[in-house]
Amino acid sequence: MNRHEQERIVNATALQSVCSQLYQEVGVAQSDADTIAEMQVLMDLRGVHSHATRGMPGYVRGIINGNINPNPQLQRLEDNAASVLLDGDRGLGHLVAIRAMNIAIEKAKSASIGVAIVRNSNHFGAASSHAMRALPHDMVGFATTNGLGVNVAVFGAKSVSIGNNAFSYAIPAGEEPPIVLDMACGAAAAGRIGTARLYEEKIPLGWALDADGNETEDPSKVAAILPAAGPKGSALAIVMDILCGPLSGGLMGINKHYQPGDAPPEKCTSAHFFLAINIASFTPITEFKTELDRQIRMTRQAIPRSGFTRVTLPGEIEWELTQERRANGIPLHREPLQTIEQLADELGVEIPWERV
Amino acid sequence: MNRHEQERIVNATALQSVCSQLYQEVGVAQSDADTIAEMQVLMDLRGVHSHATRGMPGYVRGIINGNINPNPQLQRLEDNAASVLLDGDRGLGHLVAIRAMNIAIEKAKSASIGVAIVRNSNHFGAASSHAMRALPHDMVGFATTNGLGVNVAVFGAKSVSIGNNAFSYAIPAGEEPPIVLDMACGAAAAGRIGTARLYEEKIPLGWALDADGNETEDPSKVAAILPAAGPKGSALAIVMDILCGPLSGGLMGINKHYQPGDAPPEKCTSAHFFLAINIASFTPITEFKTELDRQIRMTRQAIPRSGFTRVTLPGEIEWELTQERRANGIPLHREPLQTIEQLADELGVEIPWERV
Repeated sequence: MNRHEQERIVNATALQSVCSQLYQEVGVAQSDADTIAEMQVLMDLRGVHSHATRGMPGYVRGIINGNINPNPQLQRLEDNAASVLLDGDRGLGHLVAIRAMNIAIEKAKSASIGVAIVRNSNHFGAASSHAMRALPHDMVGFATTNGLGVNVAVFGAKSVSIGNNAFSYAIPAGEEPPIVLDMACGAAAAGRIGTARLYEEKIPLGWALDADGNETEDPSKVAAILPAAGPKGSALAIVMDILCGPLSGGLMGINKHYQPGDAPPEKCTSAHFFLAINIASFTPITEFKTELDRQIRMTRQAIPRSGFTRVTLPGEIEWELTQERRANGIPLHREPLQTIEQLADELGVEIPWERV
Repeated sequence: MNRHEQERIVNATALQSVCSQLYQEVGVAQSDADTIAEMQVLMDLRGVHSHATRGMPGYVRGIINGNINPNPQLQRLEDNAASVLLDGDRGLGHLVAIRAMNIAIEKAKSASIGVAIVRNSNHFGAASSHAMRALPHDMVGFATTNGLGVNVAVFGAKSVSIGNNAFSYAIPAGEEPPIVLDMACGAAAAGRIGTARLYEEKIPLGWALDADGNETEDPSKVAAILPAAGPKGSALAIVMDILCGPLSGGLMGINKHYQPGDAPPEKCTSAHFFLAINIASFTPITEFKTELDRQIRMTRQAIPRSGFTRVTLPGEIEWELTQERRANGIPLHREPLQTIEQLADELGVEIPWERV
């Protein structure tokens, strides 16, 4: 079966409406549910399906089984002019992250920079969802997280001992789309390996090791993801783990033990780190944006090397895809879509698109 | 000629003394000269020769020809509780960076985080030199820079359009050596390609392109360095460039045009970005260090995959090399060593080691 046959085209607005209703059905306030649904559908629009609505049924079930708080009351454990340490009240990660990033942005308005470090949260989706919240404020945004468990082999190791921690920088331009870096420190996100498994496609050598410590092209045999660029990605994964885990008073990913299905102990919950930099505190925003636009246009004019048809900026392909899919719909793999449909049936939410 | 035959063993203290005297001869104050000499010799001790005393004659000649200010008076252009924008007075980059990082650290003591952004500086050596200054203060240090000119091809491009911008995170542990990430965003630092050229060794495929846009193993044919991990290193190079250049009111590396040998126009000088995070503002320092030590010991116990004899943490090999070379001397390639000796002869500084 080719890619096309495994997919359904779904309208973004319809998908967003279903997502929001599902969250509301399990106790998320309407405005919060709308924001999270928009955030998750945006990742489908951007083509980042690994961190989009595909994950939503898992979050909703986490709320149903009581492990995720749909209405968290964030506590400020330490509060300074430019930084805050927050307890996320075991909240839905997206919601905790939205509120934390908002605080970082508020702090950066007056203090030029703002840092929000968060403990006691849950999986927050794509790091770029949160870094990009700085953009309308003409700020640089940075977001990273350390999750539970480990799936990456440290450089030189045969088996896993670090999380595939991801981080994102978002930087506003003028007339051009923003620069958005969103990378896992491993050679690939687990979700991308999952996508290959879903479509029964091979993965490139250099992405992962099998249980014997040999490189594998079979996504179903992956026992450890390799770090991106060897020692560089490995070190970045360790640094991001520390910025979130130990710096928030919690643990490194490898030390977060818990029974799957259970709520993890407090020090084992997800932790996040957010930074906002108010550009206007350092340089006139128009000068900054003019220079960015100039850089973007020059980079785009670079001659592609063999194997490439064009040169793009970080986040540019995702930005273009967003425009195209808003107009023409989002292709979604039917398996995760059916999972959403089943959940909607259970919770009494109507599906506005035609089912197969 | 093998590696050994091309090298001389030099005592670290002797090398440091010569470096400091050379800087003093061209007008750097003694205490500043001592600090910079220590910093540069430390990079030789760590095995990072590309950013060590090999570069020193270039800095000294820059001072002699008037392009680098040996006694910069830094100006605070913007000053907030947690951040500062500095004009580096066209100073010797190491010196400007030391002072800027000191300000970031001072700010982090009271504000929990401190950012120092610097314009109008010069090449600051290794990013880790400056990030590591946070360590004795029990802080996390971050340093990055954007230089003049470009030597990396953006992902997918045939020729250069971005600098090989480097950045470093330094994080203190307890009884274990600190975690020190120091990476160029390209597949390799230009200095490492220079080292291969010096020793007439091949470079791995995947590091660089020749003038025709094909991958090359010949370090003398390198026309463009490839980004590390493709789109990831490429995006990181762009982000670091922006954090330093446009954010400090200057330009991206590609737009910094000047005549080699001349002093660059103000917007084309080197720019830096420093961040210090005071760990104790977020979590008790002993808990943080205990968790780091635990992580480090666990990681070290990972089973190496084939081709590796052991698993090490970021900065661990450099830390071990430092102890060994302090005791037994530093192997230096004789060509750059002769350049230092010639400069010493010109400036009337005595060489305490035996010349070949």
